[in-house]
Amino acid sequence: MKNELIPTIIQDVKTLEIYMLGYSNQESLQKTKTTGNVWFYSRSRRRLWMKGEKSGNILKVEEIYFDCDQDSILIKISLQGNAVCHTGNKSCFFYKLK
Amino acid sequence: MKNELIPTIIQDVKTLEIYMLGYSNQESLQKTKTTGNVWFYSRSRRRLWMKGEKSGNILKVEEIYFDCDQDSILIKISLQGNAVCHTGNKSCFFYKLK
Repeated sequence: MKNELIPTIIQDVKTLEIYMLGYSNQESLQKTKTTGNVWFYSRSRRRLWMKGEKSGNILKVEEIYFDCDQDSILIKISLQGNAVCHTGNKSCFFYKLK
Repeated sequence: MKNELIPTIIQDVKTLEIYMLGYSNQESLQKTKTTGNVWFYSRSRRRLWMKGEKSGNILKVEEIYFDCDQDSILIKISLQGNAVCHTGNKSCFFYKLK
């Protein structure tokens, strides 16, 4: 996964609610593992960022899983704060299709 | 989302277990909505495919969500069968990092 971007699902370790999907690269995953907080690679800003670095809504890593093809990641987290989404919603997945 | 590939999370509607991540495009999402079974776009085979078309492990759509940026999808499903992963595991996310 040298410079690849890997879709990374964020799920609450207790409630199992899915909060968001971000992108990891090798460097951000390394920071996630060493710091215990979730880091992503931002495609729009083209840099690493720690989720919650501004909002304070930090994602504490509990468990990390790769899928069978090792091209997707699932991180189970404990949320430090009230919301994950920048809109103020707890989860980013709030548009329900009818 | 004309020809874009949108990462699509598959979650059990009852247990909330995450089974896999696939990719949707406009056409596969349309088939998912009209048939009630999950369809994906296969990046390796470059064609649409219905999950379970060979294995019989079909994913019945229960709810579909978009995220805040509308560049990720979450589909809550009922699993028709025993496993989602082609390895025979129930979920594709079975490699746990230590």
